[in-house]
Amino acid sequence: MTQSTLLRPASSLVHLDPLSAFPISNRYTPPQPELTGPEAGSVSLVGAGPGDPELLTLKAARRIAAADVIVYDQLVGDGILDLARPDARRIYAGKKAGKHALPQGEINLLLVDLARQGLRVVRLKGGDPFIFGRGGEEMQALIASGIACEVVPGVTAAAGMAASTGIPLTHRDHAQTVVFATGHLKEGNVDLDWDALARPHQTIVIYMGLGALDIICRELVAHGLWRTTPAAVVHAATTPQQRIVTSTLMSLPAEVRAAKLQTPSLIIVGTVVELYPLLVHAADQVATLAV
Amino acid sequence: MTQSTLLRPASSLVHLDPLSAFPISNRYTPPQPELTGPEAGSVSLVGAGPGDPELLTLKAARRIAAADVIVYDQLVGDGILDLARPDARRIYAGKKAGKHALPQGEINLLLVDLARQGLRVVRLKGGDPFIFGRGGEEMQALIASGIACEVVPGVTAAAGMAASTGIPLTHRDHAQTVVFATGHLKEGNVDLDWDALARPHQTIVIYMGLGALDIICRELVAHGLWRTTPAAVVHAATTPQQRIVTSTLMSLPAEVRAAKLQTPSLIIVGTVVELYPLLVHAADQVATLAV
Repeated sequence: MTQSTLLRPASSLVHLDPLSAFPISNRYTPPQPELTGPEAGSVSLVGAGPGDPELLTLKAARRIAAADVIVYDQLVGDGILDLARPDARRIYAGKKAGKHALPQGEINLLLVDLARQGLRVVRLKGGDPFIFGRGGEEMQALIASGIACEVVPGVTAAAGMAASTGIPLTHRDHAQTVVFATGHLKEGNVDLDWDALARPHQTIVIYMGLGALDIICRELVAHGLWRTTPAAVVHAATTPQQRIVTSTLMSLPAEVRAAKLQTPSLIIVGTVVELYPLLVHAADQVATLAV
Repeated sequence: MTQSTLLRPASSLVHLDPLSAFPISNRYTPPQPELTGPEAGSVSLVGAGPGDPELLTLKAARRIAAADVIVYDQLVGDGILDLARPDARRIYAGKKAGKHALPQGEINLLLVDLARQGLRVVRLKGGDPFIFGRGGEEMQALIASGIACEVVPGVTAAAGMAASTGIPLTHRDHAQTVVFATGHLKEGNVDLDWDALARPHQTIVIYMGLGALDIICRELVAHGLWRTTPAAVVHAATTPQQRIVTSTLMSLPAEVRAAKLQTPSLIIVGTVVELYPLLVHAADQVATLAV
């Protein structure tokens, strides 16, 4: 496995002159590559960002606009699919009511099949494809089938939430590290390395953990964090539906229940949460200026 | 500190109809807000992404194009500043040869001062402003001075690197958590919580750690990771200068020295690194299709 490579990264392969790097507009017509046969299909695993369509990257917007078919998840923000060509096929592969609409294996096969039809496929995922997006598994399946594949990163949900609430993920006075985990319930429990998470000077962000919030708060305290450690749940960060409940590990579950927060929500734990109230007022001022 | 708030996030304040959300082009002229006095200035803390200008968000590109003045760091990718108006002031506040060009306190004062002149200020940082960007400190200083402030997130360097190398940060078969840390040398040592980092089923990404690579690899092994744990250093990820050395914790320092990798570089540790070689060939195929 030891190797040293001078690699032109995928992202540089389409590097453009900076001033011509923004051909995206309502009138944008993507270039049509010459398809030479079934092997000419490709799949871009694209991060759709945290929700706000403005937090899509330029490259992601370009890939969506050029796609023949888009296979998308539930967490893809409203409005993002509108960037696709009117004639592009849209296939929903997300979760509904806790179940996968399509099992992961079938999604993998679908992507391979579409690419083999010679199509430019965009596999669109909320956040970043390589942070809890199963993008790695899809990449493996595609490459094992000989399909050309690239990955377009996105702003992960935690970074979007941090920016829209004013809670930094790291801060010299608060947290020197930040750790991302998932809080899926499995047979009524959450399989996390609590000793690694429950550390001072660390920010914890837990994706998909709302259903296990009681367990998460209890275990973090049981493994050494103060009951008074600041913690918050943020629903639908960066969208007009954003809501936040800030509290402490001790009181957060009850307050979140009282506020009736729903999925999708992120949990953030650490003293950085104390900084939350700062940005709230500033944001209203900036709104009148920075359109 | 306990509070529950229904908050319109900063990002929704400028929410636009999706189909009109991409007015960025070479001919784009930003709207000119009416400035009513010195108090009308504002600061946007903007993430410039991992390097490739195409990985800027649409919102970041818009803020840069509208700015009166841009205060930028060393890690802002080539070409991104070209998006600014020709008459926008550009102020370099980054590091040079290991020193800050401007101490953090002076940067804070500079931002306050520029905003008080009634200017739309963009504080542009590599990656994401709230992940090792000191954006939190700047936000605090601005708000303490009564300056309107917002945060525009960016694709953090780790996610950019993951996408451009094909190394997922999480993966069900490899890593259920990912932790970001910095590897700054302080008096010849690195102050990290090695017990929390050296865990199975976790991916570690260390920013700014190249100078401490020997210490980092040694300490991770001393605290329980196998000497054969896959690890890599990636230089200038997502740019045409990207280079990667993959190895094991045991051999990585020597191989990186032999390859003469320079800063900026990221260190990534964990079995996800085994997936690296997969994307290399696929990327060259997709390049011909997905322009």
